[in-house]
Amino acid sequence: MTDKLIIFDTTLRDGEQSPGASMTRDEKLRIARQLERLRVDVIEAGFAASSNGDFLAVKAIADAIKEATVCSLARANDRDISRAAEALKGAARARIHTFIATSALHMEKKLRMTPDQVHEQAMQSVRFARNLCDDIEFSPEDGYRSDMDFLCRVLETVIKEGATTVNIPDTVGYAIPELYGNFIRTLRERVPNSDKAVWSVHCHNDLGMAVANSLAGVMVGGARQIECTINGLGERAGNCSLEEVVMAVRTRRDYFKLDLGIDTTQIVPASRMVSQTTGFVVQPNKAVVGANAFAHASGIHQDGVLKARDTYEIMRAEDVGWAANKIVLGKLSGRNAFKQRLQELGVTLESEAEMNAAFARFKDLADRKSDIFDEDILALLSDESVTAEAEHYRLLSLSQKSETGERPHAKVAFAAGTSEFHTESDGNGPVDASLRAIESKVQSGAELMLYSVNAITSGSTESQGEVTVRLQLGGRVVNGVGADPDIVVASAKAYLSALNKLHSKAERVAAQG
Amino acid sequence: MTDKLIIFDTTLRDGEQSPGASMTRDEKLRIARQLERLRVDVIEAGFAASSNGDFLAVKAIADAIKEATVCSLARANDRDISRAAEALKGAARARIHTFIATSALHMEKKLRMTPDQVHEQAMQSVRFARNLCDDIEFSPEDGYRSDMDFLCRVLETVIKEGATTVNIPDTVGYAIPELYGNFIRTLRERVPNSDKAVWSVHCHNDLGMAVANSLAGVMVGGARQIECTINGLGERAGNCSLEEVVMAVRTRRDYFKLDLGIDTTQIVPASRMVSQTTGFVVQPNKAVVGANAFAHASGIHQDGVLKARDTYEIMRAEDVGWAANKIVLGKLSGRNAFKQRLQELGVTLESEAEMNAAFARFKDLADRKSDIFDEDILALLSDESVTAEAEHYRLLSLSQKSETGERPHAKVAFAAGTSEFHTESDGNGPVDASLRAIESKVQSGAELMLYSVNAITSGSTESQGEVTVRLQLGGRVVNGVGADPDIVVASAKAYLSALNKLHSKAERVAAQG
Repeated sequence: MTDKLIIFDTTLRDGEQSPGASMTRDEKLRIARQLERLRVDVIEAGFAASSNGDFLAVKAIADAIKEATVCSLARANDRDISRAAEALKGAARARIHTFIATSALHMEKKLRMTPDQVHEQAMQSVRFARNLCDDIEFSPEDGYRSDMDFLCRVLETVIKEGATTVNIPDTVGYAIPELYGNFIRTLRERVPNSDKAVWSVHCHNDLGMAVANSLAGVMVGGARQIECTINGLGERAGNCSLEEVVMAVRTRRDYFKLDLGIDTTQIVPASRMVSQTTGFVVQPNKAVVGANAFAHASGIHQDGVLKARDTYEIMRAEDVGWAANKIVLGKLSGRNAFKQRLQELGVTLESEAEMNAAFARFKDLADRKSDIFDEDILALLSDESVTAEAEHYRLLSLSQKSETGERPHAKVAFAAGTSEFHTESDGNGPVDASLRAIESKVQSGAELMLYSVNAITSGSTESQGEVTVRLQLGGRVVNGVGADPDIVVASAKAYLSALNKLHSKAERVAAQG
Repeated sequence: MTDKLIIFDTTLRDGEQSPGASMTRDEKLRIARQLERLRVDVIEAGFAASSNGDFLAVKAIADAIKEATVCSLARANDRDISRAAEALKGAARARIHTFIATSALHMEKKLRMTPDQVHEQAMQSVRFARNLCDDIEFSPEDGYRSDMDFLCRVLETVIKEGATTVNIPDTVGYAIPELYGNFIRTLRERVPNSDKAVWSVHCHNDLGMAVANSLAGVMVGGARQIECTINGLGERAGNCSLEEVVMAVRTRRDYFKLDLGIDTTQIVPASRMVSQTTGFVVQPNKAVVGANAFAHASGIHQDGVLKARDTYEIMRAEDVGWAANKIVLGKLSGRNAFKQRLQELGVTLESEAEMNAAFARFKDLADRKSDIFDEDILALLSDESVTAEAEHYRLLSLSQKSETGERPHAKVAFAAGTSEFHTESDGNGPVDASLRAIESKVQSGAELMLYSVNAITSGSTESQGEVTVRLQLGGRVVNGVGADPDIVVASAKAYLSALNKLHSKAERVAAQG
């Protein structure tokens, strides 16, 4: 047992499983690079066997990341584990994370297996995995609701077979700090070879206690790895928030007495990147990364805060990466300045063609918006057409008008593969008219589940609008994101971006954890 | 000590203090009525002495609410306490909540008082308050960071003077469940007359543990009142979330063994009302009330969930008020149907004129949108022009157009008092152009801090857009909200609504808790 607390980020795996949060390979790679700057210890990059796209994303991340351990999830079977090992081949440090459910409910209703069968499969899988990789994590899914005796038996076996980390998920977010901490402690006391593995916690936030449960697992239970996600992204109410758990350990070092490798100044940039990429907004009253999280960041200087900052603030905004918006580039900035700023932001474009496309978009934006902020640059990159990935639909032009008492109308020209379409429609508003115009040609039949807009850079009415459109079709949920100073244009881009994601069909296997 | 857990809602006081969350009297009254439907035990309606507007809001709520106790905050001085008592005169059950800081840091830097002076003032204030009201709550601000001996002395005194509830705020969100629970327990053990008062917890969420801290205060410390807000609204990272703490106690009744008076099916309606009123979005991965909080509500039916719902769900969506969107009204609905639906939604309009204005808006909307949902009705009511409150600026008409390659342009006509203005401008987008056009006449000089849009009813491209505009001027932050199927029109309405709030100047005293 060390006093180093291992931060295992699963934004790209458990976070990405959240309906509507699916990301492209390039988006994942960009976030992985930010996670490396954040200095997380382990990046769970995906679930290699779940789809070809996931396999390629895990592989790309394994090839690119040098410092952090890169991990792939795998069900407890040889095929999944082999795929994970293959995807991780290029990694400087690789980990295979295999799991099987151990609660009576999950074994009976989901797996339709007996406890003995589950025990056997866990054993065989870890044995198999250990021959392919020397860093093996095992998770008993729904572990917190599992029978204690059975769970001890399974954990003893997998540690004996070479699992180096054992992780106890509260899969459904049912735990209470005191109970969860004691549960981990009891397991560690009763499993005879418990000292041969690092113990890990994985908590969901359904009752709002994922952070406290994780920390009780550490302080009461003796775990030394926390699994978490940026912005608490994840299915349902999400996972333990990385930013909250890290800042709790850092701010209350007097109590936790644990070392962390995290560079906390990279927290806010990571939060923004994940939010912009997935379209999942961060509420203003979110701890650490919400717009209001720091009193003085909200533009309000309360009397008390002016008199002594620590009367109301226990953390410093700059320690988690909040900084004043800086004008970084403008109309006269050249290609080199742009390229250098990208490097400072940690963005690497894969090819010269991508760099050219990005720079062209930058110049186009700078023509219409005088001050370009870091957020604008990141939004510009989240625009699909900059990346090399399949882009079937592209917006060519749009015109629209609305007038009180008349029905709004839009004309849209867009490309679909090598074809070009000109279409028009009226609608309840100019956005509705534009989307209807596109849909009348594409006829995707997709259902619009969410439409939201955020201004990318506040402080000016000339901000860009970033629109997120979430579509559902046949059980698949995709997000499209589009940014433009014209909100109607941004909406059309977002809609086409979502259609592109639906177009590139990817069948995936769902996993829980 | 009873096994009833008292839920004290402070959405309208601590929540409303959040920068940008200020509400009008009518908005507060509407939320108070929803809190009564939710069956909270205590509604903290405001801080009567902080401004005339606050006084009138507390008074309106005290006069209207029949079941819950209505509470006003007051600093520990006779003037504040008298104002609170006066505002609460009409209440069926009234409580005065007085506070003074007790931590060394706050006493020295903020109050510039000695501990003895603070002790004396606490005593005098509770004595004074007790003559005006028999339900008195006392809070030592920043209590959790206060010296234990001093705090015990203050609490013993205020209980002796007749405080019926003593509340221990973790004002800066610094606590850890184990430490906070033990802190409350130690206080209760050491204060000789501790059994003469109900003990209360008030936790902030800066480290993401407000819910767990509150519950530790109850389970370990023996507190029997929790102070919380809808959506965890509140300064910085906000307060303990009512919905999370209530559902934790309800879902884990096996552990907590506490009774609650809450009607949980009113949670989601309350969450939506607070979010729509303040413009503070609820993130999709927010526990209980986020759009993704329940797997099946997101439109995704995972294999496991289909096989047995409790494999992944520990609460039922319908138990917290999630229900399928129902088409409730349409173009052909008459005045009576509309009025009846308002009653079912718990909305009472103050006058016939307001009802007429609301119905006119409803008919206008029904002309442009075929299906009207509950959310549409609530949005329509959050439109300022329906309420009787001062409405200086009103949108009369708007026309705008944008076309790729050309500069977007907008023409706006609006009323300001008895004058009428016609104005036009170009801009980066049609929203920017419309806001610039308005600003060119009004010349408020306000800074735009936030612009966001949410579709009110998902599931259709003909949703209304609800736009929130946050303006700052001279240290004041106001939110304007506007709803319309045309996003540009909604934006102009939101901007004018924010300007109306700036126009009705209200100087307020800031309080923390």
